[in-house]
Amino acid sequence: MTIAVYPGSFDPVTNGHLDIAQRAAAIFEELIIAVYDRPLKDLLFNTKERVEMWEKAIDDMPNVRIKPYPGLTVDFARQVGAQVIVRGLRASADFDYEFDMALMNKSLAPELEMVYLVGKLEYLFVSSSRLKEVAILGVDIGHLVPKHVAIAMREKLRRVQGGLE
Amino acid sequence: MTIAVYPGSFDPVTNGHLDIAQRAAAIFEELIIAVYDRPLKDLLFNTKERVEMWEKAIDDMPNVRIKPYPGLTVDFARQVGAQVIVRGLRASADFDYEFDMALMNKSLAPELEMVYLVGKLEYLFVSSSRLKEVAILGVDIGHLVPKHVAIAMREKLRRVQGGLE
Amino acid sequence: MTIAVYPGSFDPVTNGHLDIAQRAAAIFEELIIAVYDRPLKDLLFNTKERVEMWEKAIDDMPNVRIKPYPGLTVDFARQVGAQVIVRGLRASADFDYEFDMALMNKSLAPELEMVYLVGKLEYLFVSSSRLKEVAILGVDIGHLVPKHVAIAMREKLRRVQGGLE
Amino acid sequence: MTIAVYPGSFDPVTNGHLDIAQRAAAIFEELIIAVYDRPLKDLLFNTKERVEMWEKAIDDMPNVRIKPYPGLTVDFARQVGAQVIVRGLRASADFDYEFDMALMNKSLAPELEMVYLVGKLEYLFVSSSRLKEVAILGVDIGHLVPKHVAIAMREKLRRVQGGLE
Amino acid sequence: MTIAVYPGSFDPVTNGHLDIAQRAAAIFEELIIAVYDRPLKDLLFNTKERVEMWEKAIDDMPNVRIKPYPGLTVDFARQVGAQVIVRGLRASADFDYEFDMALMNKSLAPELEMVYLVGKLEYLFVSSSRLKEVAILGVDIGHLVPKHVAIAMREKLRRVQGGLE
Amino acid sequence: MTIAVYPGSFDPVTNGHLDIAQRAAAIFEELIIAVYDRPLKDLLFNTKERVEMWEKAIDDMPNVRIKPYPGLTVDFARQVGAQVIVRGLRASADFDYEFDMALMNKSLAPELEMVYLVGKLEYLFVSSSRLKEVAILGVDIGHLVPKHVAIAMREKLRRVQGGLE
Repeated sequence: MTIAVYPGSFDPVTNGHLDIAQRAAAIFEELIIAVYDRPLKDLLFNTKERVEMWEKAIDDMPNVRIKPYPGLTVDFARQVGAQVIVRGLRASADFDYEFDMALMNKSLAPELEMVYLVGKLEYLFVSSSRLKEVAILGVDIGHLVPKHVAIAMREKLRRVQGGLE
Repeated sequence: MTIAVYPGSFDPVTNGHLDIAQRAAAIFEELIIAVYDRPLKDLLFNTKERVEMWEKAIDDMPNVRIKPYPGLTVDFARQVGAQVIVRGLRASADFDYEFDMALMNKSLAPELEMVYLVGKLEYLFVSSSRLKEVAILGVDIGHLVPKHVAIAMREKLRRVQGGLE
Repeated sequence: MTIAVYPGSFDPVTNGHLDIAQRAAAIFEELIIAVYDRPLKDLLFNTKERVEMWEKAIDDMPNVRIKPYPGLTVDFARQVGAQVIVRGLRASADFDYEFDMALMNKSLAPELEMVYLVGKLEYLFVSSSRLKEVAILGVDIGHLVPKHVAIAMREKLRRVQGGLE
Repeated sequence: MTIAVYPGSFDPVTNGHLDIAQRAAAIFEELIIAVYDRPLKDLLFNTKERVEMWEKAIDDMPNVRIKPYPGLTVDFARQVGAQVIVRGLRASADFDYEFDMALMNKSLAPELEMVYLVGKLEYLFVSSSRLKEVAILGVDIGHLVPKHVAIAMREKLRRVQGGLE
Repeated sequence: MTIAVYPGSFDPVTNGHLDIAQRAAAIFEELIIAVYDRPLKDLLFNTKERVEMWEKAIDDMPNVRIKPYPGLTVDFARQVGAQVIVRGLRASADFDYEFDMALMNKSLAPELEMVYLVGKLEYLFVSSSRLKEVAILGVDIGHLVPKHVAIAMREKLRRVQGGLE
Repeated sequence: MTIAVYPGSFDPVTNGHLDIAQRAAAIFEELIIAVYDRPLKDLLFNTKERVEMWEKAIDDMPNVRIKPYPGLTVDFARQVGAQVIVRGLRASADFDYEFDMALMNKSLAPELEMVYLVGKLEYLFVSSSRLKEVAILGVDIGHLVPKHVAIAMREKLRRVQGGLE
C-alpha cells in the first residue's frame, strides 16, 4: 500500500490543486494533503483557513486526509509513513525549481520518491500567487477556484483592503 | 491496485532506466516495462534483444513484467489495464519534450495518468543515445549500464563495425 | 496598412495553424500565408496539396491569401511588400528555436518585424510532426485538424502505407 | 484599424523599451503606452515621473500616446478599445513568465491578442531592474537609456542616497 | 599569467563553492575569491564572518586569496588586475540569469572574460539559499558544507532563533 | 601552464568560433583547436578543408595550434596534455545540451575541466548549421564568417548544387 503526501502552501486552494489531488488519489491508496503551517507573512490565509478550504473541497474523496505541518516536508512524510511526495507540474519554469528541490530531498531522504503529475491543460496557468495578483485588482476568479474559495477570497480581500485584517 | 506502464525504446537498457523501473515498482502494485517494437532503423538492438536485456536486468523484481508493443503507448496501456504511464526525467531539456507528449497523451486518453520520476543524481546524464555515441568511440561504459548490457554492447559494436550486421 | 506573412511547411495544416492565421488576420490589414515549397523529402504532402489545404480552410477570410515560396522567408516577405512575419509560439522549447531565428532574420532584414502570437490553450501541444507520428499509428486526429485535412491524412496514409505513394 | 497597448512599469524607461515602442508604432495604427500606476514601494520613480520620461522619449512619434493605468492590463486595454497587447521578449527566462501571463490574460479577455516582439540584439540584456542595480553602484548607463533618463537617474539616485527622498 | 576573480555572497560557503574554487585555482595562475560586502539585510553572516569561512576552507591553496569588495564586480576585477571572472553553473535556471549578467558585464567591461565552470554532480542542487531554508528547519547539512561552516551555521541559527542576533 | 582544447566540427568556421578562440587564447597559455575528423556525411567540408579554414583564420595567434582528431574529445585532450576543454555558449538551448555533455565528460575524465565562454552579442545567433541553411538559399553570409570562409562556401555550394561534388 502506497501512501502519498501532497504538500504546499495552498494560499488559496485552486482548481489546479484540486485536479492534482484527484489524480493522486486515483493512483495511490492513500493521499495526505499537507498544508504548510508557517507564519502569515506573505500569506493571505492562515493555516486553519487553508486546511478548511481543502476540507470543503475534498469531502467526497474517502482516501484523502488533510494535515497541517510546520517543518520540513520530508520529515512530515516520514512521520506519516509515506513513500511518495506528489507535486504538480505546470510549465518548464516550474520544472527547474522542482528539479533542484527533488535532488535536495533525495539527499535528505533517499527512500522517499518525488512523483510529478501534469494537470489539466485548462489549469496550466493557474498559480495561487497569480490568482491573488489579479483578484486584488478586482478580477472574478470564480472559474479558477472551488466555489467556496471564491467566496472566501472575496471576503478576505474586502477585509484586508478595508484595513480590518 | 494500480498498474503502471514504463515505455521506451531502451536501446540499450541503462542503469538510469533500471533505477526508474525499481522506483516505479516500489510505489505501484504492478509494473509493465513496455519495449517499443519498431523497425531496426536508427536502433542498435532488435526488439527481441531489448526485451532480453530487461529480462536479465529485473529477475529479482516479482511485480515487474516485460512486454514488447508495436503501436501507440496509450493504446498499449489501455490493453493491459494500466492507469499510469511512468517516465523518468533527467533535465529540463527532457521536460519540454515530455510536457508536450503528456498533453497529447491526455488528449488521446484522459483517463491515463502521466507520472514522472526523478532518478539518481549519478545517472542524470545517462541517455541511451549518448551512451551509443561514446561506446562507438571505444569508451568503456561498464559503470553506466548493467553488466550483461555492457557485454552485449561490446559484442554488437564488434559485429557492426566489422560489417557482420 | 500592414501586410503580414505567416510562413511554414504546414505538413499538414492543423487547428493550431488555423487559430494563429485567424488571430493574425484580425489584427493586420492583410495576411499572406506562405507555404514553404521544398522537395517532398520528409514531407507527407506536396506543395500543391498543402496550398489547397489552406485554401479550403480559410475560404471565409477575405483579407487572407495563400502563396507558395521556394527560398528564404525574408526574401519572400520583401517581394510581397510585407512589414511583418508572424509566428505562433507553443511552448518554451519552441521559443529557443524561434529566438535564434528571429536574430538571424533581423541580421538579414532589419526592416522586417518578427511578431509572435500565442494560440489557444487547447492547441498548445498540436504540432504537425507529432500529429503525423500518432496518425501513422492509427490515432483519429479529427479534433486537432480541419475536417478536410483529417480526410486527406487518412487517404494519404492509406496510399503511403499501401505502397501507392 | 488596430489599436495596441504596450504596458509596463518602466522604472525607468530604457532604450530597449523605446525600441519595442518604435517597432509596435510602425506596424499598428495606434499605440498607447500604458504606464502601470502603482504605489512607489519597490519603484524608484513615481507614476508622473515615469509618464514624463516616455513623453520626452517619443515626441516624434505621432501615433503614440502615453497613459497611466491603475488596475488590470486587460481592463485598461478594453477601455481604450485596443485589440492588441504588445510585449517585448528578451530571453527564454522572460518567455516562461510571459507565456503564463498570456494564458491568464486569454482566460480573462479572449478577444485581446497578446503580441510579442523581439528587440534589437544590443538591448537584449537591458532590463529596468538590472539597470537600477548597476546604476546604484555608480555605473554610467548613458548608452542604455535615453539621455534625459540618464540625467533623471543620476539626480534621483543622488537624492535617494543623500536621504532626500 | 591569468588572474581570475570568483565573486559571490557566499552566505554561507558551501562544498559547491569550494569545488568551483579548487577547479578555478587549478587552471588559472591566481584566484581571488571576492566576497560581496553588502548590508546584512537578507544575509545570515556578515562580511567578516563570510571572509573567515573562506579563509579556513582554503588554507591549503597557495594561489588563492580572499578579499571583500563593496561595489560592482567588474570594477573590483579591474582593480586587482584580473582578466577573468569565474562563475559556477548548477542548472539551466542558473544559466538564464548568468547569461543576462554576462552580457551586461561585457557591455561594462569588454576586456573581462566571463568563464563558467560546472561543478561536481553531487553538489548540483546545493545553493546557499536552499541550504539556509532547510537548516532553519533543523536539517543537518554537514555533508554539504565544510565542517567549520556547519558549526558556524548551527551556532548562528541558535543565536538568531533565540533572539540573540 | 594551462593547455586548453577547443573542439568542434567547424563546418564551416564562423566569426562566432573565431571570437571564442581569441578569448580562450587570451586567458590560457596554449590553445589547441581540435577539428573533429569524421566521415563527410552531414558535413559540407572535409576534415582537411576545415583545418585549413582555421589555419588561415588564426595566423596571427602564436599560442594557437590546429589539430584534427578522430575519436573521443576527452581522449584527445588527454593525449595533448590539456587540462581544459573550452566551449562557447550561445543561448539556453545550447546550455541544456552542453550541461549533459559536461556531466558525461566528467564521468569519463574527472581531471579535465569543462570551461564555458560567452561570445560577442553580435554572434549570438550564428551557428554553422543555420549558416549553411541560409547560404544554400543564396544569402550572403559575408558578415558572419571570415572572408576566406565566405569565398570557400560560395565555391563549395556552386560545386555541390552543380552536382560536381
